[in-house]
Amino acid sequence: MSLIPIRPEVPFGAPAERSDAARNRERLLQAARELVAEYGAEALTMDALACKAGVGKGTVFRRFGNRAGLMMTLLSDAEADFQQQFIFGPPPLGPGAPPLERLAAYGEGRIYFVLEYGELLKGAGVSPRNRFDVPPAMLAHRHLELLLREAGMDEDPWVMAMSLCSALDPERIVNDVRVHGISPKRLAASWRQLVTRIINPA
Amino acid sequence: MSLIPIRPEVPFGAPAERSDAARNRERLLQAARELVAEYGAEALTMDALACKAGVGKGTVFRRFGNRAGLMMTLLSDAEADFQQQFIFGPPPLGPGAPPLERLAAYGEGRIYFVLEYGELLKGAGVSPRNRFDVPPAMLAHRHLELLLREAGMDEDPWVMAMSLCSALDPERIVNDVRVHGISPKRLAASWRQLVTRIINPA
Repeated sequence: MSLIPIRPEVPFGAPAERSDAARNRERLLQAARELVAEYGAEALTMDALACKAGVGKGTVFRRFGNRAGLMMTLLSDAEADFQQQFIFGPPPLGPGAPPLERLAAYGEGRIYFVLEYGELLKGAGVSPRNRFDVPPAMLAHRHLELLLREAGMDEDPWVMAMSLCSALDPERIVNDVRVHGISPKRLAASWRQLVTRIINPA
Repeated sequence: MSLIPIRPEVPFGAPAERSDAARNRERLLQAARELVAEYGAEALTMDALACKAGVGKGTVFRRFGNRAGLMMTLLSDAEADFQQQFIFGPPPLGPGAPPLERLAAYGEGRIYFVLEYGELLKGAGVSPRNRFDVPPAMLAHRHLELLLREAGMDEDPWVMAMSLCSALDPERIVNDVRVHGISPKRLAASWRQLVTRIINPA
């Protein structure tokens, strides 16, 4: 039950990467971003990327491991930026606001994040491990757990934080919006209601 | 946003099935159950089933559509039994108990259901449609929504019920138990705390 990030299956940038390797990697990522921009994340396959970048399929697999690893690499800048905001950014998402306001802001921010990066998140979250036990997911869980504790919840905030993370499941949010026509604003309002009720019980 | 069940991709038993077709179907399902019992749901592929049942692969695909359809068919008896319990069964899961007790009992029942059928649920839930918009998922959501309304929640119980369904996501529950060593009892206690706080806010 340690919260220290498990080593991801695919390194987010090797420590001693040579500069030509780094250039090749960036060229591949740029080609991947172009494919996503043009045809959507669903069209981004290892084959399509190799073809677009003019390299062998083996190169793409050696670099990213598998399609989910490629998706995680593409997401990592966006995830790092979002983490930066909730850990160090201005309140209410960042420190300085009361825990309830930070919880509400986190959910709202995450809903819009998911609606922007939903297809990549879906492509990356192909296994339970990729959904729950990669560093961004563990950090999000830990963040929610700490805010619940700060708000005075002393009954099993670990599990409650996991329930809250589940309520922000990307597939669920995208499905609510696209299939059921629920507006992001309505999702955010319901999230605020949820965390308010959890923190201020009778 | 209609809650009338969308036609499932794979029929759960055609209306005018001939008796020999019904026998063949039952024989295939029996072979599938044996494979699951012996090797686990992960080992149940269309190829393995065709081989085990001594029929062509085409027959298996015609009958179940795809692997997820086969999983849903295997689950349908168990889902129907669970539905029977929460719609018609004795309280607190069935009618007759206060809505909060029914909500708590639903989550607890579902946690144990998921731990029994998790691999099949995972195999069936391969797409957002299969996770959220098949009859058992829609019925579960509708049930939670009605209990929230009965408990007096008038602010968007539809979305809140969807958040509650997400908290019972099979992959999340199985991962909490198997990877993080959370006991089912602890998950059920946290679920009870969650619905209690949602229903009895400050």
